Parts: sequence; C-alpha cells; structure tokens
Amino acid sequence: MDMTLNDVSRPGRLAAPDEGISAEELALAARNHGMPLEALRYDVTPAGLHYLLIHYDIPYAEEASWQVAVGGLVDRPLILDLAALRAMPSRTVRVTMECAGNGRARLLPRPVSQPWLVEAVGTAEWTGVPLRDVLAAAGIDPFAVEVVFTGADHGVERGVEQDYQRSLPVDEALGEDVLLAYQMNGAPLLPQHGFPVRLVVPGWYGMAHVKWLREITLVDRPFEGFQQAVAYRVRRDAEDPGVPVTRIAPRALLAPPGFPDFMSRTRVVRPGPVLVEGRAWSGRAPVTSVEVSVDGGQTWSAAELEPEGGHRWAWRRFTYAWDAVPGSHLLTARAVDALGGEQPIDQAWNRGGFANNAVQQVPVACLD
Amino acid sequence: MDMTLNDVSRPGRLAAPDEGISAEELALAARNHGMPLEALRYDVTPAGLHYLLIHYDIPYAEEASWQVAVGGLVDRPLILDLAALRAMPSRTVRVTMECAGNGRARLLPRPVSQPWLVEAVGTAEWTGVPLRDVLAAAGIDPFAVEVVFTGADHGVERGVEQDYQRSLPVDEALGEDVLLAYQMNGAPLLPQHGFPVRLVVPGWYGMAHVKWLREITLVDRPFEGFQQAVAYRVRRDAEDPGVPVTRIAPRALLAPPGFPDFMSRTRVVRPGPVLVEGRAWSGRAPVTSVEVSVDGGQTWSAAELEPEGGHRWAWRRFTYAWDAVPGSHLLTARAVDALGGEQPIDQAWNRGGFANNAVQQVPVACLD
Repeated sequence: MDMTLNDVSRPGRLAAPDEGISAEELALAARNHGMPLEALRYDVTPAGLHYLLIHYDIPYAEEASWQVAVGGLVDRPLILDLAALRAMPSRTVRVTMECAGNGRARLLPRPVSQPWLVEAVGTAEWTGVPLRDVLAAAGIDPFAVEVVFTGADHGVERGVEQDYQRSLPVDEALGEDVLLAYQMNGAPLLPQHGFPVRLVVPGWYGMAHVKWLREITLVDRPFEGFQQAVAYRVRRDAEDPGVPVTRIAPRALLAPPGFPDFMSRTRVVRPGPVLVEGRAWSGRAPVTSVEVSVDGGQTWSAAELEPEGGHRWAWRRFTYAWDAVPGSHLLTARAVDALGGEQPIDQAWNRGGFANNAVQQVPVACLD
Repeated sequence: MDMTLNDVSRPGRLAAPDEGISAEELALAARNHGMPLEALRYDVTPAGLHYLLIHYDIPYAEEASWQVAVGGLVDRPLILDLAALRAMPSRTVRVTMECAGNGRARLLPRPVSQPWLVEAVGTAEWTGVPLRDVLAAAGIDPFAVEVVFTGADHGVERGVEQDYQRSLPVDEALGEDVLLAYQMNGAPLLPQHGFPVRLVVPGWYGMAHVKWLREITLVDRPFEGFQQAVAYRVRRDAEDPGVPVTRIAPRALLAPPGFPDFMSRTRVVRPGPVLVEGRAWSGRAPVTSVEVSVDGGQTWSAAELEPEGGHRWAWRRFTYAWDAVPGSHLLTARAVDALGGEQPIDQAWNRGGFANNAVQQVPVACLD
C-alpha cells in the first residue's frame, strides 16, 4: 500500500455532542500538561510545573553546535552560536505565558486538539538577548514587514509537513522585552522549553514563543505558513478566514481552596473563614480589578489585588476572604484589564477553541 | 443541604465499553503527566519530564521548619529536620520509577482513574540518607513488622479522608538503596516530587515512594490503610481481596522513530535504515534481553542491549537497526528479566489497572 501524509494526518474536526475525550486527545494530554492550580501560590512557577505544549517532538539539541541564522531582508546576515548570544547584553523579564487553546476542552462542541481545561499557564523569568539588538546588528532592510521564526521541531499537521514556524510584524519584534532567551528561572532552558534558545514575546499567547530557535528571517510580505495562516486563527467555522490569535485575553484563576477528592477533583472545605487566592493577567493591558463569586456568578465581590511590583508581563496575586457555610458552592473569579477587557461567564465559541477566557468554575463542598 | 464526603467522592468504577475518556479522567491527565517518549534518549530524565502522579494537591512546604518524626515501635523516637538529615552520610542511587497504573487507559474495560497510556515512567538520580541508618539510630523494636510512611498530601478518595500513607515490610525497608531523598539529579527536590524530603524504594512502583514525608512509624501488624489495603491491589473484581502491588514488572519502551503527526501521533519515516532505540527495566530482576517486532508481534528480532553500567535500578538502553520499507508498520518491543518475567502481547486485565506491562504499540507510516 502506498502511504502518504494524508493517511496519518487528517483535517481538524469537532467532537460529537456526546463524544468523550478521544484516544488521540488523551495521547496529547499524557505528554503535554497544564500547571497544577495549587502552583498559583508561586510568583514564579517552579521547573516542571509550567504548562507545556509541544506540537511534535522535543528535538535533540547540543548547545556547542547550535546556531541561529539571521537572514532574509537584512544588511548583514548573521550566524549566532550560544557563545555569541551570551556575549551580548542580556535582559531578564518575568512573563506569564498561556496556551492559546487554554479552556478548549470545556467548549461545546469541543474542537478536537490538545484538550486543555484551564491550567495551560505558567510564569517564568526568562533571560536572553533582546531581539531588537540582534536585528539592529543585522540591519533591517526598509522593505521588511515581518520576521519569521523557525524552530527545530519537525512534524506533520493536517497533511502539511513542517518545521514549526511563526512570524511577528517588525514593530512587534522590536519591542524591548522580546527576547532570544537562553535561561529560564536562572538556569539553562530545559529541553522541553526550547533548549538551547527560544523566542519569548511577552503578552502573546504561547504559539508565538518559538522554541528550539534556528532561523530568523525578515520578509517583505505577511507570512503565510501553516501556524500563521491555517492554525491559530479565531474562526466562526472552517470556511471563515478568521483573525489571527495574538495577545493574551484577561483571565483570573483561583487556586482551588481546601483539599480535593482524588477522582472528581471536587474541593472540600469546612465551615468558617477560607482565604481564597489566585492570579490574574492580561497580555493586552494591565489588570485593573478582579472580582470573586461564590455562587456561580450570581453575585460578585471585589478581590484584593496585589501591586504589580514592576512585572508588567506577569500575573498579579489576588485574595478574597470567604466565610464558608455548609453546602455546595461554585467559586469563580473574573479579571478586568485597563482596556476594559472582561471575561465572559459563558463560552465565546470559535472553531479552534482559541483565546477563550470564559471564567473558571470551582465546585466546592463545605461539610457540616 | 447537608454535605458529606460521599457527595464528592464516589466508589471506583469501570468505563462503559464505548465510553470516551471522562471529564474527571481528563482533569487528572491535565495536571499529572507522563514522560514524552522521545525523552527515552536520556540516561537520566531532565527535570519536568519525569512522570508525575499526585493523588491530592502538592502541599506547601518550607524546608526550614520541615520535620520527619520517627516513632512507633522504636527504642528512641526521633525528630529529624533537614539539617539533621543532611548531616548523616548520604547515598545517590539512579532509579527508574514507574506508576503502578501505567497502561491503564489501554485496558478494556477501562478502570476509571488516572488515564495513563504507556508514558508513566522516568529515571532520576536520588540523593539522601539510607532509611536503614535512620532506623538504626532509632532502634527497631523486635516486634515491629512494618514501617508506615505518612506524607503531607491530604485529600479524600472513595469516601476516605486521609493523608497519603503507605507501608513496607521491615526487611524491605532495610534495603541498602531505600532512601530518605532530599535531592533529585543533584538539586533540591522540586515541589511536585516531594520537596523537601521523600521516600525512594528502588524497584517498586511509584506508590511506595511517599512524597512530602512527615512520619515514619514502626508497627506490629500489617498496615491496613487505604492505599495499602483498598487501592493498589491486583484484583479480579471489586470483591476480590487481591494481592498487593509491589515491584515493577519488566517493560521495554521504544522512543517512537521518525516524526509525528500532531493530532494522531502516528509516526512518519522514509524508506531506509532507521535506528530504533528504547529503554527496558524491571524492578524484580535485571533485564536480560529485549526483542523488537516491526510487524505487530508476529516476528521478533533480538535488540542490542547496552550494559547495565552499575545502575541496577535504572533502565537499560537498547537499539535495533530497522530497514524501513514503504507501508504501514506496527513496532513494539518486549523485555525479559532474570526471573523469566515477560511482557504479554495482549492485556492482562485487573480491576484497578495495575502492574500492567502489555507491550507498547507504535504505528509507523513509511512513505514512498
């Protein structure tokens, strides 16, 4: 039998209304993972707890021989190894990163892909070279409009064999906090986070932060690669050209209070004061307020929002003093940012399940 | 409404024959995770790639105030802080750890619990104090038959509120490589791996390696706690008292060759030589041989098995030179250990889905 890529790689689909999570979705969930929500206690997420989404395989990489090629519409093409990057002035930025598909598995109908609930988030301190310094060294041709980033991870997706590639408009690429990062939380990158060097684009969903970075190419027209023009677009249906996924919509997440049941993950508390805490972030504008509801969104109370502390791109902690009474409760929180962005109570559905920031739901049983 | 633990915590169940993965199973898969199989390339699994199974929440822990109490049937009860543990002679052991439920989601009918495919494994270098030195310092009462280990993780499971607890027979606890570990791969434990101190029992499935260790208690009869007497038993059905899950059955896993389709995870290779590699281990006896099949188990060929290299409790690398030809292939491997333990081609079903070492199945498409 002649095999082609289309034998192993099928079009995107929506799950049937009564279809449980499929074996394919489970295979993705078993290797990628969210951040256990109790890790919302940390300002900076410890190694291994940050969410992870890898389209293909973690590539084999040796730092000694790794090179990043800077080319296309530049005056002076560059080949940078890690020693060259480390020799340049570095910058450290604390960044909350979230997968564009976070919340997808809660949608109805459910787009079949990585089946995230709400945990696809994490915060890290990234250290590296500002991309704009590298671009300045190469010299940007005035006809360049976008910068294309190519990673070493190779696979096939909906029939298209590819290295993972994404682009940024030149003006976004020149932002002072956009980094070619070679450290995460003060240590070399872990293999699964892009060792030895990755792109970090603070405020953008994770798909922009190309891992295992090998090429930076300036081009004179908008990039039409798969991850830009086909995937990662907010579409009403499969025919809608849609709009690109870019910056992170505002979201608040609660660290579920009390303790869990192993299987249902329902939370258990006992009557009395419970300090509910969580984190809120937006890649679009600073978070300005967070509200908490203990009755599933019927009534809301202002949470105490901690100061930003100089970390524009990182989540902010909030707390709410709840006096738990016996019974069944549905806790949630919602963040508002300086642009007025809010979180919907119900889903705002789109075909790929992207940029969905519907509020979290945390069922809590308060025992007698 | 009066709430009780039984309102949030239900008995174990089997999935219906046509039931997809449930929302509850997905919630476990989103926070726990396996090891991406390409990480079989590493002798020691990098931080964050080692499999993880946490029954309840990762507890908050401060090293400065952490204490391990040694009591029960001992001559001299002890309270050990981390400084005291670090002051004792240490030992470092390389250990392949596997979840007792690995492979559960491939069973039919499927026991509803953490839905592992085959990735619930990892290898780490653990450093700590041999438990037998601590027990010698405390003095073991001659009537002691088991040692009970209590962790700080608290939750409810099938209606039973509990701190996570497991026991070992005294003779197993006195093994020279059983450790109270405070380092993993040369660094302090990560929160999710039991910071600041955990038990490591080389050769046993993961449930024995109690994390966030707080109490060590010697007792004069077999421990009847939930994780010992109810969970982690190989049972034919819910009424069968079953036998306890103990040491790791032999298993070989292939690092899937070629590159994957994002969604189906089917592997793609091109015709010609493909070096297939993997790792094999057994907690019962050393692995003595590994065979590979490229036709779904109809025919088998001996793999090249690398030397143990002095790491009795760690997996061993194997390789097999495959000459791929166009078409659809099903790759698998099977390990044999010195006790003659083999891997079944078909499932060996039990009610909890434990200690299941049926062979892996890796569909590979070789293009023309």
